[in-house]
Amino acid sequence: MRGFPEGGRPGAGEYPELQSELGPGREFDLIRSFLRRPAHPRPAGETLGPGDDCAVVIGERIAISCDMSVEGVHFRREWLSAEEIGWRATSAALSDLAAMAARPIGVLASCALPDGDAGEFAVRLMSGVRAAAERVGGGVLGGDLTRSPGPLVVDVTVIGEARSPVRRSGARAGDEVWVTGALGGSAYAVAALLENRRPLPEARVRFARPAPRTGEALWLLDRVALTSLIDISDGLAGDAGHIAAASGVAIVLDRSAIPVDPSLPADPDSSEERLRYAMAGGEDYELCLSAAPGAVAAVREAFESEFGIALTRVGEVEPGRGVFWGTSDGGRVPLAISGFQHFRESH
Amino acid sequence: MRGFPEGGRPGAGEYPELQSELGPGREFDLIRSFLRRPAHPRPAGETLGPGDDCAVVIGERIAISCDMSVEGVHFRREWLSAEEIGWRATSAALSDLAAMAARPIGVLASCALPDGDAGEFAVRLMSGVRAAAERVGGGVLGGDLTRSPGPLVVDVTVIGEARSPVRRSGARAGDEVWVTGALGGSAYAVAALLENRRPLPEARVRFARPAPRTGEALWLLDRVALTSLIDISDGLAGDAGHIAAASGVAIVLDRSAIPVDPSLPADPDSSEERLRYAMAGGEDYELCLSAAPGAVAAVREAFESEFGIALTRVGEVEPGRGVFWGTSDGGRVPLAISGFQHFRESH
Repeated sequence: MRGFPEGGRPGAGEYPELQSELGPGREFDLIRSFLRRPAHPRPAGETLGPGDDCAVVIGERIAISCDMSVEGVHFRREWLSAEEIGWRATSAALSDLAAMAARPIGVLASCALPDGDAGEFAVRLMSGVRAAAERVGGGVLGGDLTRSPGPLVVDVTVIGEARSPVRRSGARAGDEVWVTGALGGSAYAVAALLENRRPLPEARVRFARPAPRTGEALWLLDRVALTSLIDISDGLAGDAGHIAAASGVAIVLDRSAIPVDPSLPADPDSSEERLRYAMAGGEDYELCLSAAPGAVAAVREAFESEFGIALTRVGEVEPGRGVFWGTSDGGRVPLAISGFQHFRESH
Repeated sequence: MRGFPEGGRPGAGEYPELQSELGPGREFDLIRSFLRRPAHPRPAGETLGPGDDCAVVIGERIAISCDMSVEGVHFRREWLSAEEIGWRATSAALSDLAAMAARPIGVLASCALPDGDAGEFAVRLMSGVRAAAERVGGGVLGGDLTRSPGPLVVDVTVIGEARSPVRRSGARAGDEVWVTGALGGSAYAVAALLENRRPLPEARVRFARPAPRTGEALWLLDRVALTSLIDISDGLAGDAGHIAAASGVAIVLDRSAIPVDPSLPADPDSSEERLRYAMAGGEDYELCLSAAPGAVAAVREAFESEFGIALTRVGEVEPGRGVFWGTSDGGRVPLAISGFQHFRESH
């Protein structure tokens, strides 16, 4: 899970081109530095290690991932109910299973609880964990409870069955790029909350009770030969960058096609500002995917009537590296919006 | 993982008899209260849910568990190197796999890092995570990194293959109860560190670099029909109580047989005090197991020469409920030592 930016608004891009396997930023540098150290010995069951949305083990059947939420970094207590804190942390982790088209089996939730939270608050938080898991057909398999001398911390691990896991690395030049749903609602809700404004209920719910696109991913898996898939947790700019980096391709996006969340007010925010929320906001937990031309369009109407959310073609895959805006003359310019990075603001 | 007691020494027993399925205490009450809420729908792959050391899913093949370590609760920064923090957190979680005789596949590590820790410190911590996983034949499958406005938090999830998982619930009257290794070293090291004394290196290493009994559990599984198995993370008193509760039996321990860690100084601590460390200390990550009479004795010498640690018969299983000391006249008295409980000291 990302965190909310200290300043309130998602930042404009220090990173004109997303060029590395995991995208830029200090957090990713740290993960890269760690992962470069060779594994010895290689775990017997591991077939897909860190660097995708989940690890996949046991003959590619089991997908597993974890996601940590920290009070003051990912949420403020006054913004969410105890149930919502548990729901949100769990749904964020479950979104990583959706990102590989894996069927959830269950979740484990570890909580570090400030002293006052050890009673009914914790039970309500865990009810939110359970409700989010059950929404996608999973259960609560276990967890750990401990005392925290600082903030509330919730770490959720998800495990799922990945019949045929869809990676980030299969996008090929000529493919189309699509996204589910609408983008920017969650980031807009956070920005409003940080400024002590009340977001529209439709925006708040995107932040407080996100719905991982589990059923949507499995539905698409059955009908479309997806060449890549990722969930939009860091913002479309960053997550499209992850696909581009892992697949060794360029992704060229159509600025006018980006599905901006309708719960973002048209005024006073400019369309440029709305686009920034949609591209850099993250935590909408929608999906971004690629497939051969025409493959998604053929099922779009059925998808939209099944799930009640849009399926939108936002761009295409081209030779090259990085993420770009297409220009009206058929060219491309580097995308000047980046995803949020932890630690970026610190010091 | 338990935490260290605020006062320094493990507490004497408020709980004369361990009588419930998970043992006593507010932390367990909380887990119980949560788990009583019925799962709906039942996860398809779940065959053994919370309440044992691991959950086991996918036709009983996959064991999974998590363990959270919090700075100031489970360790102090000045006591451990960054590598040791990672090693210890990972080994504590891996011990839950050993407790079901599951073969480790890999680990996921989520870290909430105070700002100053986001660089080389985190990389060294992760090296400790990796080293602990590789020691038992596993790898690092993934993780999450986030900022912490408070303490360092490390949550490690372990996944393993459980060919034939050994539960807590199979102990039967007439079985013998055995433990691996020696007990109390880790708790003694913490008590010394809390008093600004320097523990013997042999005690410190039990706290700083615990070795989960993975190989030992798998070796025993191949040779002995284990009726129950648990790792000693809360102290033998508490963990034997978990077996007694889950199996619906009484466990009667032989006070003179408890293998107290030789790194505990004979002076100035009384033998009563040494026994308290061994029984209530926890976090030695040894194993407690039960089997039919004679079954373990038949392999004891081979075990001890293979692993260089003791295998000690500490008591037997009888009809009844709870954990007791045997008396010289063949009777039994309730055990007046309890495991450490989170939240117990708080208000």
